[in-house]
Amino acid sequence: MNEQDIAVLEAVLSCRSYISSSSNASQADAQIYGALLDKLPNTPPSVVRWAQHMASYSPQQRQLFPQHTNVQSCGDAKVDQQLNSLLQKAILKQKQESSKNISTTTQRDVSPAKHERVSQNSLSPSRKPSKSGSSKGGKLILKTAKGTRDYHPAEMAVRRTVFDKIKSVFHMHGAVEIETPVFELKEVLTGKYGEDSKLIYDLEDQGGELLSLRYDLTVPFARYVAQNKIDNISRYHIARVYRRDNPAITRGRYREFYQCDFDIAGAYDLMLPDAECLQVIHQVLASLDLGLFTIKVNHRKLLDGLFGACGVPIEKFRSICSAVDKLDKSSWCEVRAEMIGEKGLDEAVADRIGEYVKLNGKQDLLNTLKNDDRLKTNEDAQAGIEELELLLQYTSLLQCDANLLIDMSLARGLDYYTGVIYEAILQEGQVPQQQQESDNSKKKSKKDEEDDGGTVGSVAGGGRYDNLVGMFDPKKRTVPCVGVSFGIERLFAIQERKLKLQDRKLRSRLTSVYVAGVCKGMLHHRLTLCALLHEAEISAETSRKINPKFLTQLQYAEENGIPLVVTIGDSEVSEGVVNVRNTSTRQEEKVPRDQLIQHLKQLLPQL
Amino acid sequence: MNEQDIAVLEAVLSCRSYISSSSNASQADAQIYGALLDKLPNTPPSVVRWAQHMASYSPQQRQLFPQHTNVQSCGDAKVDQQLNSLLQKAILKQKQESSKNISTTTQRDVSPAKHERVSQNSLSPSRKPSKSGSSKGGKLILKTAKGTRDYHPAEMAVRRTVFDKIKSVFHMHGAVEIETPVFELKEVLTGKYGEDSKLIYDLEDQGGELLSLRYDLTVPFARYVAQNKIDNISRYHIARVYRRDNPAITRGRYREFYQCDFDIAGAYDLMLPDAECLQVIHQVLASLDLGLFTIKVNHRKLLDGLFGACGVPIEKFRSICSAVDKLDKSSWCEVRAEMIGEKGLDEAVADRIGEYVKLNGKQDLLNTLKNDDRLKTNEDAQAGIEELELLLQYTSLLQCDANLLIDMSLARGLDYYTGVIYEAILQEGQVPQQQQESDNSKKKSKKDEEDDGGTVGSVAGGGRYDNLVGMFDPKKRTVPCVGVSFGIERLFAIQERKLKLQDRKLRSRLTSVYVAGVCKGMLHHRLTLCALLHEAEISAETSRKINPKFLTQLQYAEENGIPLVVTIGDSEVSEGVVNVRNTSTRQEEKVPRDQLIQHLKQLLPQL
Repeated sequence: MNEQDIAVLEAVLSCRSYISSSSNASQADAQIYGALLDKLPNTPPSVVRWAQHMASYSPQQRQLFPQHTNVQSCGDAKVDQQLNSLLQKAILKQKQESSKNISTTTQRDVSPAKHERVSQNSLSPSRKPSKSGSSKGGKLILKTAKGTRDYHPAEMAVRRTVFDKIKSVFHMHGAVEIETPVFELKEVLTGKYGEDSKLIYDLEDQGGELLSLRYDLTVPFARYVAQNKIDNISRYHIARVYRRDNPAITRGRYREFYQCDFDIAGAYDLMLPDAECLQVIHQVLASLDLGLFTIKVNHRKLLDGLFGACGVPIEKFRSICSAVDKLDKSSWCEVRAEMIGEKGLDEAVADRIGEYVKLNGKQDLLNTLKNDDRLKTNEDAQAGIEELELLLQYTSLLQCDANLLIDMSLARGLDYYTGVIYEAILQEGQVPQQQQESDNSKKKSKKDEEDDGGTVGSVAGGGRYDNLVGMFDPKKRTVPCVGVSFGIERLFAIQERKLKLQDRKLRSRLTSVYVAGVCKGMLHHRLTLCALLHEAEISAETSRKINPKFLTQLQYAEENGIPLVVTIGDSEVSEGVVNVRNTSTRQEEKVPRDQLIQHLKQLLPQL
Repeated sequence: MNEQDIAVLEAVLSCRSYISSSSNASQADAQIYGALLDKLPNTPPSVVRWAQHMASYSPQQRQLFPQHTNVQSCGDAKVDQQLNSLLQKAILKQKQESSKNISTTTQRDVSPAKHERVSQNSLSPSRKPSKSGSSKGGKLILKTAKGTRDYHPAEMAVRRTVFDKIKSVFHMHGAVEIETPVFELKEVLTGKYGEDSKLIYDLEDQGGELLSLRYDLTVPFARYVAQNKIDNISRYHIARVYRRDNPAITRGRYREFYQCDFDIAGAYDLMLPDAECLQVIHQVLASLDLGLFTIKVNHRKLLDGLFGACGVPIEKFRSICSAVDKLDKSSWCEVRAEMIGEKGLDEAVADRIGEYVKLNGKQDLLNTLKNDDRLKTNEDAQAGIEELELLLQYTSLLQCDANLLIDMSLARGLDYYTGVIYEAILQEGQVPQQQQESDNSKKKSKKDEEDDGGTVGSVAGGGRYDNLVGMFDPKKRTVPCVGVSFGIERLFAIQERKLKLQDRKLRSRLTSVYVAGVCKGMLHHRLTLCALLHEAEISAETSRKINPKFLTQLQYAEENGIPLVVTIGDSEVSEGVVNVRNTSTRQEEKVPRDQLIQHLKQLLPQL
């Protein structure tokens, strides 16, 4: 792929989301992305946007993109022709790959419904594909419900480490933990999620109350604050939520998935809790060691002011905001077309907005906006700018401003935000390290990234919502809130990928010592030694067979990453010693039995 | 209450469960129990059984017992008369108490439906009682679903410490963790719970699969083992389960509650995994520091052998077993009557069983049974006895046999047990410390104590179930299993009560340092200090107000048990120092700012 090819791609991608169409990724994207990988750091902005979007899929997921059929015209015959020749090459290459790997081809050709099955199976490798969820002729089909999965021990170990790190950041801020029921009265959820309400799982009416499974943790939190008449609380809540979606399981999306929310409720001084939320995001992402990240920030008041100043009629603020919100997946061309066509905005107004949404920066940007001819007389805009200035100042004192970027294209979908909004974007893997001006990557809504759906590397998002608690309070008492939700399933997936790349496994069992018998008849000694070790709070296992083979025991210790093996045989018994064997170096040393605990306690912290 | 009164109670309680009737506790029980408290260590066996049962209720719960109306006759006019005079005294005392405390009387007089509401409210004290779960005139009623509750920060802190201790024991044994979805295909649960199946929560049929919320963790575990074709695993699983019961919320029972299961699946040598489960129970209860406990053990083969040898027809084994299982709540009189009347057993056969079920002991008991005329030729009984002997031997080597007691009255309700069964009983609070022979306290079934329902101090139970996985495997491949389920909600409640008695609170926020400004204008310094502390991984909070009052800040630190306060004012700024204040001693010392971290790191571990 040469410079000219990349110029062709830039021309195509500057006016549509994907290579062959505006709406859907296809094998054209997958193959050209593969060919482009080594060129990425020097590519132009639209290609960068697209490449970041591609990078959010795993190679396996990209393999499951459908074949491209018709390639839309770009309106320029020459570019069309060049693109076609590029695609010819890609198809050729793809066919060569396919013939090498039949199973991949099979996966690629199945229908969408089968896609899901294939990927579900890949998550529990030892299970045979089953025909359907219902029993056939009384035979029980063994599977989990659609869109759900079991978590295996190795996955739980990753989850544990991620949770522990995140929780320790929350505790660093004095946050407390709460838990709410998995289901709520149906009416608690009613009217909170707009058209997504159809995704709520209802329980069967078995007599009594009408119940629904929780859809997120934010609405139950607002219900909790209102019901318990709480004036202020900073709490975290880590739990699974339920959405009767048709999830792209190929992309790690499920109907049952974790959310991890940190929120500060209470009337405090301007921007202090908001800055703390940004500090929490900064600390969590730094502690998980995920490489470079950017925390994009914007303000609903600034956006509203901007729309007003550009000439958007006030009744169109929300719909134009939700159009801006699509800049993560769509090019400006497409969003502009939506504003003008679908939403009926004047071309000139749309173009004015277009000038602003490409801006980003920090104090420099705020200075520009403060003195901008259109904005300097707009009260909303100036209020938003002032708050953002204060936010920059506080985050600087809190030393969490290095990765902050005020980004005018950040809009976030949910209506309930009333102030600062933010979103953290990861720059991982094949995505270029530097942010470019045209990096319009952004999330559709808080909901979207919470369920790990999202787009380019978005791993956290949130903002201020001052009116939600009031919706629950009988006296409309409001409690201002600001919070962040981490895309925890995505963080798990990234950690798992990272470990795999490093060819490292987290230990799912935490045993320190395996007690092995060298010869037959050692069971009593092994059990006694285990009790001795447990008494000293050293985790220890021994075989649950009376006379296991010595090598089998050593192998178990190796396979399970148990760092030390205490071995004992007839001669050790008569000498009153045991051997302590280092599993990785295979070195052994004799230790008197009465010094064993002391010896192990010295050794273990170094392993 | 004198010796004679106690003799009357013994006469009454030796033939029925409660003081005024066989079936239900009443205020007669509550008041007489209150009057009896100081006499308990020297009371006769039936009174002890009843008192242990009473002790499993909290004083608040006992207040909610209904008034007694008709007192059943004991068949002995003199005893009837004596009891009535005892009850007169109790009623008189109760009336005196009531007039002192009107609110208590109100609670006592409400209908059962209202009981539940009252107790639910008491769990979230700041909420006003609401009329019902449905909205009235479009007004949202703020409450959680029936039988569910929010967990508040202080409760979560207790949960965290209990979970951490239990998990560390599981990890000591090399157990891994798994997680399964909160709902399963309906057919997975079908036919596993007998008549309790009516308690399963079904999800609404919204198109697609028919789903149900999990009822326990054992059936999903068996499904997991079968589906993933696992040969061996020792896993733990801590999660909430769902039962559409009419729970006695007054007794801490809910429709949504935690289970905490540890199971060993796999073909191992006889009694080695079983002994390990007993060791886990021993270690968990010891680590939670709950005082004295007994682990009762029995064996299904021994029970079957016993029934056979006593002349129970084989088709009545299960129903007689389930009658024996009632000895926790009912006296032998009642159980015997059920065997003869309801189950049609010969009187002589029942009396023979009666001789055995009162036996308990260790090797001495096994020796007796081995040589017992009826049992010595019974293959089942002898096999059970041999396995129990091996179990005693292994648990002795594992140093967890001190609290073990083989108890012939332990039967456990669930049909699926195939070998060793066990149950741990706590001897707490007002319950006498020594176990008596007639202490027939026992659980109805694994299910019962898992949901913290149970009876006298039962906090864990389980056993061997070798055929459950085979029910799921298409090829009927069986994987032998043995496991234990902790009555975790009960353990929480006990810990909470213990903390309350000690007038101790667990900290729900874990902040080490509060940063306080002595005078106005300290915000920037406070934020900088917080960032400095966080950088050093010291948890630190500061006020989210620009100029909070100094005393308000100190008060916050005291109320939230934050051990150290770093204070800073104008003079400290100019001197380059801060004050470090010990919250409990209120002593302060000046520390140069550049030595602050080092100073705190020395100080904090001692606090």
